[in-house]
Amino acid sequence: MSKQLRAGIVGFTGYSGAELVKILERHSQVEPVLIEHRAQTADEKTFLNGHLPRLPWGEETLQDGDLAVIFFATPHEVSLEMVPKALDAGLKVVDLSGAFRLRTVENYTRWYNMEHNRPDLLAEAVYGLPEYFREVTKMARLVSNPGCYPTAANLSLRPLMVEGVLDREAGVICDAKSGVSGAGKKPSGKTHFSSVTENFSAYAVLTHRHVPELLLTSDVEEHELSFTAQLLPVHRGILETIYVRTAESMSYDDIAAVYHKMYKDEPFVRIFPEGELPSLQTVNYTNFCDIGIRTDPETKRVVIVAAIDNLIKGAAGQAVQNMNLVLGLPETEALL
Amino acid sequence: MSKQLRAGIVGFTGYSGAELVKILERHSQVEPVLIEHRAQTADEKTFLNGHLPRLPWGEETLQDGDLAVIFFATPHEVSLEMVPKALDAGLKVVDLSGAFRLRTVENYTRWYNMEHNRPDLLAEAVYGLPEYFREVTKMARLVSNPGCYPTAANLSLRPLMVEGVLDREAGVICDAKSGVSGAGKKPSGKTHFSSVTENFSAYAVLTHRHVPELLLTSDVEEHELSFTAQLLPVHRGILETIYVRTAESMSYDDIAAVYHKMYKDEPFVRIFPEGELPSLQTVNYTNFCDIGIRTDPETKRVVIVAAIDNLIKGAAGQAVQNMNLVLGLPETEALL
Amino acid sequence: MSKQLRAGIVGFTGYSGAELVKILERHSQVEPVLIEHRAQTADEKTFLNGHLPRLPWGEETLQDGDLAVIFFATPHEVSLEMVPKALDAGLKVVDLSGAFRLRTVENYTRWYNMEHNRPDLLAEAVYGLPEYFREVTKMARLVSNPGCYPTAANLSLRPLMVEGVLDREAGVICDAKSGVSGAGKKPSGKTHFSSVTENFSAYAVLTHRHVPELLLTSDVEEHELSFTAQLLPVHRGILETIYVRTAESMSYDDIAAVYHKMYKDEPFVRIFPEGELPSLQTVNYTNFCDIGIRTDPETKRVVIVAAIDNLIKGAAGQAVQNMNLVLGLPETEALL
Amino acid sequence: MSKQLRAGIVGFTGYSGAELVKILERHSQVEPVLIEHRAQTADEKTFLNGHLPRLPWGEETLQDGDLAVIFFATPHEVSLEMVPKALDAGLKVVDLSGAFRLRTVENYTRWYNMEHNRPDLLAEAVYGLPEYFREVTKMARLVSNPGCYPTAANLSLRPLMVEGVLDREAGVICDAKSGVSGAGKKPSGKTHFSSVTENFSAYAVLTHRHVPELLLTSDVEEHELSFTAQLLPVHRGILETIYVRTAESMSYDDIAAVYHKMYKDEPFVRIFPEGELPSLQTVNYTNFCDIGIRTDPETKRVVIVAAIDNLIKGAAGQAVQNMNLVLGLPETEALL
Repeated sequence: MSKQLRAGIVGFTGYSGAELVKILERHSQVEPVLIEHRAQTADEKTFLNGHLPRLPWGEETLQDGDLAVIFFATPHEVSLEMVPKALDAGLKVVDLSGAFRLRTVENYTRWYNMEHNRPDLLAEAVYGLPEYFREVTKMARLVSNPGCYPTAANLSLRPLMVEGVLDREAGVICDAKSGVSGAGKKPSGKTHFSSVTENFSAYAVLTHRHVPELLLTSDVEEHELSFTAQLLPVHRGILETIYVRTAESMSYDDIAAVYHKMYKDEPFVRIFPEGELPSLQTVNYTNFCDIGIRTDPETKRVVIVAAIDNLIKGAAGQAVQNMNLVLGLPETEALL
Repeated sequence: MSKQLRAGIVGFTGYSGAELVKILERHSQVEPVLIEHRAQTADEKTFLNGHLPRLPWGEETLQDGDLAVIFFATPHEVSLEMVPKALDAGLKVVDLSGAFRLRTVENYTRWYNMEHNRPDLLAEAVYGLPEYFREVTKMARLVSNPGCYPTAANLSLRPLMVEGVLDREAGVICDAKSGVSGAGKKPSGKTHFSSVTENFSAYAVLTHRHVPELLLTSDVEEHELSFTAQLLPVHRGILETIYVRTAESMSYDDIAAVYHKMYKDEPFVRIFPEGELPSLQTVNYTNFCDIGIRTDPETKRVVIVAAIDNLIKGAAGQAVQNMNLVLGLPETEALL
Repeated sequence: MSKQLRAGIVGFTGYSGAELVKILERHSQVEPVLIEHRAQTADEKTFLNGHLPRLPWGEETLQDGDLAVIFFATPHEVSLEMVPKALDAGLKVVDLSGAFRLRTVENYTRWYNMEHNRPDLLAEAVYGLPEYFREVTKMARLVSNPGCYPTAANLSLRPLMVEGVLDREAGVICDAKSGVSGAGKKPSGKTHFSSVTENFSAYAVLTHRHVPELLLTSDVEEHELSFTAQLLPVHRGILETIYVRTAESMSYDDIAAVYHKMYKDEPFVRIFPEGELPSLQTVNYTNFCDIGIRTDPETKRVVIVAAIDNLIKGAAGQAVQNMNLVLGLPETEALL
Repeated sequence: MSKQLRAGIVGFTGYSGAELVKILERHSQVEPVLIEHRAQTADEKTFLNGHLPRLPWGEETLQDGDLAVIFFATPHEVSLEMVPKALDAGLKVVDLSGAFRLRTVENYTRWYNMEHNRPDLLAEAVYGLPEYFREVTKMARLVSNPGCYPTAANLSLRPLMVEGVLDREAGVICDAKSGVSGAGKKPSGKTHFSSVTENFSAYAVLTHRHVPELLLTSDVEEHELSFTAQLLPVHRGILETIYVRTAESMSYDDIAAVYHKMYKDEPFVRIFPEGELPSLQTVNYTNFCDIGIRTDPETKRVVIVAAIDNLIKGAAGQAVQNMNLVLGLPETEALL
């Protein structure tokens, strides 16, 4: 059974890239093609993926019309250099890096500490959070796939902001915890097994590169947000505990209604019933974002617990969801 | 080399009890004595602790004058029954359970869902947080050893409250994460290895039995506090991320000064320098409480990261610290 | 899109049963039906599987012709009681327990310490290791799904035995390591997170209930085999390190040729090239059995490293592979 | 309370070096001195060890008579260069690397793939396994601290070899499993958290640098030994499952008697009673080597399960044990 469409994957040896390969292998219509953009090390050349087609990065590959779409699961500085070439060759692009997530050069430079020479693409890129930008994604040439922390935070916060139920004075506290794969595959002292096992640590308090994305999409203001990123001794998964106050007293049912209004037809957002909370195990290896709610109507405090698999809904799964939209395929194909 | 003093340990097979044994084995003057208060299972009777002295629980043991102090590392309902008998026999007691931590029967009944028949002992018991109650502990007959979450939270919050630097309107958010040993040794679906590994979950949001202790000692009011307890896939260690706002703009140095004023002579509290944060690995297997500080003077937000080993400073280590005080021994003996 | 066939799952809340549900949800032609054979606890009744069809265990369900096959992911004593009823109702059965794996009542009684009242079914049941019993499985009424340890060991040892290349005097040593899910979901002191994390232990040395299965299928004799079962601090996966000696000096290529002869057309057995070895990460979440080979021709020693996911190829995956055979569907459906 | 003696530690930032520091901080008579032999990174300069004395590596430090002994917890190529300088300066040395463990230049070159320019020191160095070389260690100038795998294997095998109870034809199979700290602190793809967690893999089958040490001390011959090194998803601990056959039929008691004869007065070797087996948790954070025995007298098979903490009895603990011998202090000081 041969598939009709082919999708190139640049950066197929990283954690997100490898997930992309796995998901596309299950896809009924799209076949993954490994795009080699640098010499692969022996470690990456295991015979286990020897059955997959490979093509070299270069004009010949980009222009022969073989690829319906190309994914970049590469560091942002690499995407910044390579994505324009793919676009120039007429390819549709889903970029998993942070290179095109922000709207302005100034913002990019502030948070990524480097120049950005394509303000036009910053302006053009569609922020690929399908729950909010589905229709525009269908017509996009360049989809910028959201970061993992912002995916969970935006899906949690935006309904509350849009409905205007929060006491904005009280601020928003997002205490976020992530598995180690969020830090990428490159070895370092911080990702050494012995540094992580039987440990838990905060690595970005009140500042993190994902904050501006979160602000852009959620409508939260920078001064309102306290964001802490912490490292869990697990391979994958993100859980965010979010503390807000409502302007009026609200029950579980009141808050749940806000979410159901926004997400009732969404295939990948699940609102947990009263008394149940998500965890990494409810979302890992799936494309779901799970949201739990706890309220104290008397003090108007609300705590939201949101979980995603950082490699699926936080990266490769959402990227395939975006690809399905771009290619006009069923949005959930290969993801349920 | 025989030691001069002996300390009985009831509940020596639990996690805290086993730590008590280990710590006392290193103590230069106090020998641990295992007090058998129920039939021990085969699993608990490993030959590895066969060299330790054992005595049965009962009048004969309590009254023969052999024990300088007795520890109860037992569930609160067991302590509630046994501790009075030990006191009646004239023994000094350090109780690691929650049986005598609160001040009133009403409070106890509310949080522990059971009656309490000894209001006199609730009133008498000294809350054994040496950094605040050292002098009264030295004269105590009954020391109630603090819970693990409150130990870290009280040491973090009380200096800020006492100095009056907080914006009380903004509330106090304590996002707490604990290792599995905090849930005790009894097997359950929630502590099954496969439920915990590669997982992270919130199990008590806005309510936890440790909240009243925290309120009693820290001076925080109940309506001000949002407390969440979460389960880390590690055996031991607690880390609390605490979010507050200050009334006036304060820098790292300002906040650090508040802590140093309170703790400059404390042997077991370490205030981290600017830019460094504690983690489970800085405190595990030690009796330290480590405190890190991050401030944003512009928005008056302060984030405190506090860590302890729940089995040491959060249980057995602090219990030995209290024993040292009660017996007039050097406070740090066997703990550094 | 509705599926044509339905498969009942008894024991859908256990680890293997839950995997069966997940695999069948991806199956293009077979829909999972949860068969409730006892009151489900609240913990098992999460709303996350609320979308799946459920039927009660009983005559009405068994006889209405709705089920093309029924899986039992139940303890062996439960299967022993329930499987005959399903067969009597005319259903095809795949049993994942040990109830029907051995050939004689005597052998069953010796290893399972209980009576067996259906010698006829012991005789009839097909041992569902498709690589060896594919054709007979296609016609089976009762498939007894292999145990996890024997699946890896049989696939590793049988080719060497069949080809007669071993020095039988030297014996066979199988040093096996398994994840905790192999011990089932029932909580116990041995499966408590704190007993397993940062630990490794041998729990069955020279004797294990899986030994007789291994002997039956591999052709190894009991006195030749030293089998040790050990517990890894992981959720899933089995790795077996097998030590044998060959009668004649054999190189990597010689041994690999023996395996390739047997497995060249097998979809789920992968023989690793010289210098590469499998690990839990090469097989987890897949239905593959991976086999690595290391030889020392001079001393005629051969070490085989075999890995499977105990919940997939060692349980639910192989069960679906057997179901596909029984129902005349493509053998790899839902498994690649 | 100031201590009388000082011990220098070169390589105090590695896993073994850091354990040396911790053990010596508990030592009643010896104070650790950090010897800086290269620029320390910021990560290594945490304020937590700011209270410890530091000296630079160099002639001035080596020759001022301040150090009673100097430890090298350095890579073998570093020890090979530095140890002679310390000896020339008149210092007593305990070297934790492999630089001086083998007896001949040929053997060293074969296993370490590099030249060795000090055959005199290879000949002079005492192999610091106190259970066998206690008396000569007391007089040593240079103690070569054993490797972690050989410590467990030698303590397990040598009694059986010395007593001549084995069937030598049957060979010796040592299936060894180690925690990640055995691979050192240097980050690599193999020690990345995500490569290790929920994984288990064999990394050295039939060949490992520790094999020659094991052969030298245990009296096992090279052709008799099959040694496999495997990586456990834990920070620390080694467990070795050793398979042998006895010449005559032997019961548990017979084998236990062989061990008790050899180890009855040893403070750090524990022989487990029949039916009990050691695990990582029985030895971690201790200087014990635990040995469990399982026999099948009918087939003359014996399985030995041996466990140590690779960082304590397998490195820093044994090094302090050796230091105590060299300095004439009580052998168990700081180790019980």
